[in-house]
Amino acid sequence: MSRKPIITLITDFDCGDHFVGTMKGVIFNINPDVEIVDITHKVASYDIFDAAFTLAQCYRFFPSDTIHMVIVDPGVGTSRRPLLARSMNYKFVAPDNGVLSLIYEKEENVEVRHITSDHYFLNPVSATFQGRDIFAPVVGWLSKWVEVDKFGEIITDYTKFSSPKPKQISESLIKGVVLKVDKFGNIITNLRPEDLPQLFAENPSAFQIIINQQEITRLNLAYSMGKPSELFAIVGSSGFIEICTNRGSAARILNVNRGADVGVKLGGQNSGAGS
Amino acid sequence: MSRKPIITLITDFDCGDHFVGTMKGVIFNINPDVEIVDITHKVASYDIFDAAFTLAQCYRFFPSDTIHMVIVDPGVGTSRRPLLARSMNYKFVAPDNGVLSLIYEKEENVEVRHITSDHYFLNPVSATFQGRDIFAPVVGWLSKWVEVDKFGEIITDYTKFSSPKPKQISESLIKGVVLKVDKFGNIITNLRPEDLPQLFAENPSAFQIIINQQEITRLNLAYSMGKPSELFAIVGSSGFIEICTNRGSAARILNVNRGADVGVKLGGQNSGAGS
Amino acid sequence: MSRKPIITLITDFDCGDHFVGTMKGVIFNINPDVEIVDITHKVASYDIFDAAFTLAQCYRFFPSDTIHMVIVDPGVGTSRRPLLARSMNYKFVAPDNGVLSLIYEKEENVEVRHITSDHYFLNPVSATFQGRDIFAPVVGWLSKWVEVDKFGEIITDYTKFSSPKPKQISESLIKGVVLKVDKFGNIITNLRPEDLPQLFAENPSAFQIIINQQEITRLNLAYSMGKPSELFAIVGSSGFIEICTNRGSAARILNVNRGADVGVKLGGQNSGAGS
Repeated sequence: MSRKPIITLITDFDCGDHFVGTMKGVIFNINPDVEIVDITHKVASYDIFDAAFTLAQCYRFFPSDTIHMVIVDPGVGTSRRPLLARSMNYKFVAPDNGVLSLIYEKEENVEVRHITSDHYFLNPVSATFQGRDIFAPVVGWLSKWVEVDKFGEIITDYTKFSSPKPKQISESLIKGVVLKVDKFGNIITNLRPEDLPQLFAENPSAFQIIINQQEITRLNLAYSMGKPSELFAIVGSSGFIEICTNRGSAARILNVNRGADVGVKLGGQNSGAGS
Repeated sequence: MSRKPIITLITDFDCGDHFVGTMKGVIFNINPDVEIVDITHKVASYDIFDAAFTLAQCYRFFPSDTIHMVIVDPGVGTSRRPLLARSMNYKFVAPDNGVLSLIYEKEENVEVRHITSDHYFLNPVSATFQGRDIFAPVVGWLSKWVEVDKFGEIITDYTKFSSPKPKQISESLIKGVVLKVDKFGNIITNLRPEDLPQLFAENPSAFQIIINQQEITRLNLAYSMGKPSELFAIVGSSGFIEICTNRGSAARILNVNRGADVGVKLGGQNSGAGS
Repeated sequence: MSRKPIITLITDFDCGDHFVGTMKGVIFNINPDVEIVDITHKVASYDIFDAAFTLAQCYRFFPSDTIHMVIVDPGVGTSRRPLLARSMNYKFVAPDNGVLSLIYEKEENVEVRHITSDHYFLNPVSATFQGRDIFAPVVGWLSKWVEVDKFGEIITDYTKFSSPKPKQISESLIKGVVLKVDKFGNIITNLRPEDLPQLFAENPSAFQIIINQQEITRLNLAYSMGKPSELFAIVGSSGFIEICTNRGSAARILNVNRGADVGVKLGGQNSGAGS
């Protein structure tokens, strides 16, 4: 392999302390010839789902053989296991707390190992910063093409949660949930166009999206098609239906955060996209 | 060309979502041998002037052949055009919303193209994240030295605004405006020393800078020459006159933001630099 | 030397302006073949101790020959000197305001030079952004292996402060101070295990840590061992004793910031680690 290996980082460390820089120092000390890419260090503290969601949105856009490291680790210093997972094209290094759950869901044949080969670690391993002492060195050695079976044995009992799925309550009612509010205040639901084919039919059905007791009845094709402070739905870049407003924060208008319920009622008169 | 090409990024995406990382993944997937430099992702949402100003302050400090990508794009998903501009030394990729206006002003002979060659795009192109689907891949291919004429035809009707110029109201009164408040609370005006030669003459004129009904009458040579909480003017590193205070935020003291009026009255007794 | 040189950055510039990007442009313009690593740009404005502390936590994890640049520079534009310091393994570039004090403390045989060779600078040098005009170009040339004696003469009268040391008030009372509150709200004190050997003995002594009139009496081995909202002490990854709570901010619970007093009373009944 002649190409420079890529390592991506997702953490809840934020950027005000030395933590991220220190991990990069450890990696470069092992392999100076690596490209490190920050995805985000602004995962909400200890928020495993948010990290899992962020990883799921971006990992496939990287070249194959990219190593994705995710350090959101409220159990640091306990017996929770450090993991090395491998799919067809990518490697993932993270604590065993479910943060790779969406990878297990999206990728076929993920092989998961319990990292136990402590001669790769920075010893003595601290109880509070294993991003520095375990994960960064493992990732550094991985980027030097040390084979995955050198780091530990395959396990199958790793922690895994299922991403929340929409529920068909009746023929005309589907319930979903808010997965994320992005920087612009767009509200990303867990509903996909394929969950609501009536909205995308040649003669689309009318609909009401109900969220925090307010109704959204328009589907737009671009953010800027909305009138000022009007709320509307859009198919977002991750394939989920989002609730948005033009040049403003839908989340603030609706006073909604992650985890909020979303209901979709179908039927009534046509008011679909572009109408 | 043997040197690694450089791509810089200016966006309003902030750093909490996957957006910036995803764009980097797309670029590295096309060209692993590129250097990506974040200028800022903290442009205020949809704030085209702020992005244009930031770009104007930094672009010339990069090596020639650097590609500057600016994604502040409230019109994403509409018919607004993606642009590729080329000056003598740099390339610029951005939406056609005026965000390159200060480049058109500062650089001679800028050639602007409408990017239409959609075989370079990530298809299908989403309506909400064309930083990922159009701009990042174009920049990736540009960094592999694909020639600019491969991306689309030259246009001349691109969107352009003029940066706000100081106005000479009378012989002793000049009016300007606040262009930016920086991280430290320094207030950057659009006034340059050449607009106020009387202040920089061998026997400098007295002056009053009036901003939000307060008067500044001192010009200092360094931030730390100011007394505690004293307001003063200084010639800033971008060549504009700034209003500052020593180890504090002039913007907070004056309660001033971008766009505020600045008046300069000349005359009266000498109280120039160092006096 | 065939390895790509590494430059790290610590500043109080934050990430919303063009400052950091501009400095990187200057460096790459001099040496395109360098790796630039952001440690943090979120040092509190003008906070020399905070920058010194951050540097001290991370610098040793980088490969030898790494150049560490620290720009927290309230005296910019005055006669304060730009410095180039060299220890056995690292180089440091910073203003002469004490920001390298912890390096002088930790590293043996630090050679400190006053940078005077202004042909390396970006001329004319501005009075407000010498990160761009002095420090970045010096670091760029250093990374091209220009020898340190080319930049200026050795000095010995550089600014230096001592890090605050714990004080033994009586046999059973030690006083320390809060050095830092990290992103998670962990309170990092200046007390080390070796200052409190009684807590780490085979039969550890009971203790009371008093901070803002509240008492902490437990020592835990991992963050997640704490009960909800319980405060406890832990040996942190930098070797200092920290006050923490499980999945929460001890600093918010205790309403404590940097500089707060910490008292440790020894004696009474055993309630040490794991008990």
